[in-house]
Amino acid sequence: MLEDVGSRDHAFVSAVKDIGRELLQLAHVSKEAGYECVLMQGSGTFGVESVISSVVDDGSVLLILVNGAYGERIVKMAAIHRLHYHVIRWDEDQTVSPGAVDAFLSAHPGITHVACIHSETTTGLFNPIEDIGIVCKKHNAAFIVDAMSSFGGVEMDMKRLQIDFLISSSNKCIEGVPGFAFALCDRNELKKAEGKARSLSLDLFAQWAGLEANGQFRFTPPTLSIMAFRRALQELAEEGGVKAREERYKTNKMILDSGMAALGFVQYLPKSIQGHIITSFLYPNDPRFNFDRFYNQLNERGFVIYPGKLSKTDAFRIGNIGQIFPDDVRALLGAIKEVLVLGQP
Amino acid sequence: MLEDVGSRDHAFVSAVKDIGRELLQLAHVSKEAGYECVLMQGSGTFGVESVISSVVDDGSVLLILVNGAYGERIVKMAAIHRLHYHVIRWDEDQTVSPGAVDAFLSAHPGITHVACIHSETTTGLFNPIEDIGIVCKKHNAAFIVDAMSSFGGVEMDMKRLQIDFLISSSNKCIEGVPGFAFALCDRNELKKAEGKARSLSLDLFAQWAGLEANGQFRFTPPTLSIMAFRRALQELAEEGGVKAREERYKTNKMILDSGMAALGFVQYLPKSIQGHIITSFLYPNDPRFNFDRFYNQLNERGFVIYPGKLSKTDAFRIGNIGQIFPDDVRALLGAIKEVLVLGQP
Repeated sequence: MLEDVGSRDHAFVSAVKDIGRELLQLAHVSKEAGYECVLMQGSGTFGVESVISSVVDDGSVLLILVNGAYGERIVKMAAIHRLHYHVIRWDEDQTVSPGAVDAFLSAHPGITHVACIHSETTTGLFNPIEDIGIVCKKHNAAFIVDAMSSFGGVEMDMKRLQIDFLISSSNKCIEGVPGFAFALCDRNELKKAEGKARSLSLDLFAQWAGLEANGQFRFTPPTLSIMAFRRALQELAEEGGVKAREERYKTNKMILDSGMAALGFVQYLPKSIQGHIITSFLYPNDPRFNFDRFYNQLNERGFVIYPGKLSKTDAFRIGNIGQIFPDDVRALLGAIKEVLVLGQP
Repeated sequence: MLEDVGSRDHAFVSAVKDIGRELLQLAHVSKEAGYECVLMQGSGTFGVESVISSVVDDGSVLLILVNGAYGERIVKMAAIHRLHYHVIRWDEDQTVSPGAVDAFLSAHPGITHVACIHSETTTGLFNPIEDIGIVCKKHNAAFIVDAMSSFGGVEMDMKRLQIDFLISSSNKCIEGVPGFAFALCDRNELKKAEGKARSLSLDLFAQWAGLEANGQFRFTPPTLSIMAFRRALQELAEEGGVKAREERYKTNKMILDSGMAALGFVQYLPKSIQGHIITSFLYPNDPRFNFDRFYNQLNERGFVIYPGKLSKTDAFRIGNIGQIFPDDVRALLGAIKEVLVLGQP
């Protein structure tokens, strides 16, 4: 974070190249195998919008699979950009059904792209992207996966999963700082986006072509966030790669699950569809429970949890990714226990 | 840069509020006077596109005043977003003519917005925004000023200059690090943009409304760049504010001008329209001059200059903003002298 390199410096240009190559490696693909990595300034949403608004052109039709707020966000993008699109919705505690997608694609042969959230942070569920990928390819549709909160914390082989565009950001499981998103792209699909983008800043193809031409960004990149991200990738490798990180997150989650159960908390999702990134807990069935107080008292103790994001149910969420280790989860559980007692005067 | 606050933390939310208030103060306006500050993730271009693509709706007509690459960039945005727009172009060594703008607006009474670059970094000229503002108001057009490379290094009273939208970024004259842009907006004009934006990420009104509602960004902000920017604003105040910084930059520029003249370099622009931010120098009239070698040899000595960006003339550019002081400019001049001698075997 303290290395203030210029965005045209050789050191920076080569860092950006390294980052692209390493991100592709994390997804078990490479430039040689026909894939490209495009960094995009802004937040994760900027990255998702860059893909959606660049690759779905006027002759394309997008199918959006929705079971939470992040799926709905893609619907918003599609509406704003006046794309041709369809939406299939499931309840927030249901995963996307590949069978239903298959049937829908059979009934709508014009669909060219399918977009899906992998880890729906609204609830914490994982959608079955492997089976959805199979269905997409059966119908010759490009598969766009928003893997914002899961990439780097879940082993994903982009080619095996038949993903054409995978989007994530600097500040989730790679554990960098915020500042940019990235899209891993099948090069052939990416090239189709030439001249099709619906904005200048978020033009995925132009961003790639610019970086490809001379290693430089079209527009000023967040240099320090990017240099910090390179360091974060080194730390990921030192930890043992995605597999080891996934194990740590799963251990965090296991300790959280059993500790919260012991405190009487009930999870919103059935275990079978719950991912290991973030968990939704129902409010305790106790009129004395006050979420704002609960949140603030945990905050005072150094623990930041998430409010709920469910449309119909009162819940809060606890994430276990980032520089969080089993002892941190145990400390959180201790703080929750303490705070619950305080809340029972 | 090392304070890793959460984007929903009280400390961060209050820093964002402080920054907004202080940026408005730098422009001699305030919320009380009817102005708002909107921070936007990404580079300066993201900020300009956020304004252009949010405020010029289907019922609006934009006039773009162009005398360099940054003006052309706004034309690109207007074309991509299929805005109704007109362009007036001047040569790169000519400033925008307020009289011509006046005549054009008289001939095209439907124009609702006028966009202009203040400091055209293509060459280094300053456009006469005060006189253009008068013309805009005479014709009831909203005035959009891209002050990317000048705001914070040039005294600007937004109200007196009759600017409705002023855009700049974190990493120019305020001397922060890259990561975001900001738009200072006349609130009444900003409010007209509600529901009109042509993208989700770059929706200027929604970004403002989100920040206004609870102080939080709609999408993950570059927290560390923002915290560093607050520190940069403190350093600006400690230096004596915009006036003192403008004096330092002007001193840098004066030393650069006389030193380069002594070395035989000729400037591209006439002195009367040259700003004090960045200067274009013609290649020396010497067949032994090789720009790439010149650039690299300066780079090896720790000085990064800019290649030219002129469409018809060979030139390079030297900027004098940032943490650059008279002694740095003198050191640069010494390095240029050394490198020129090396280039004459």
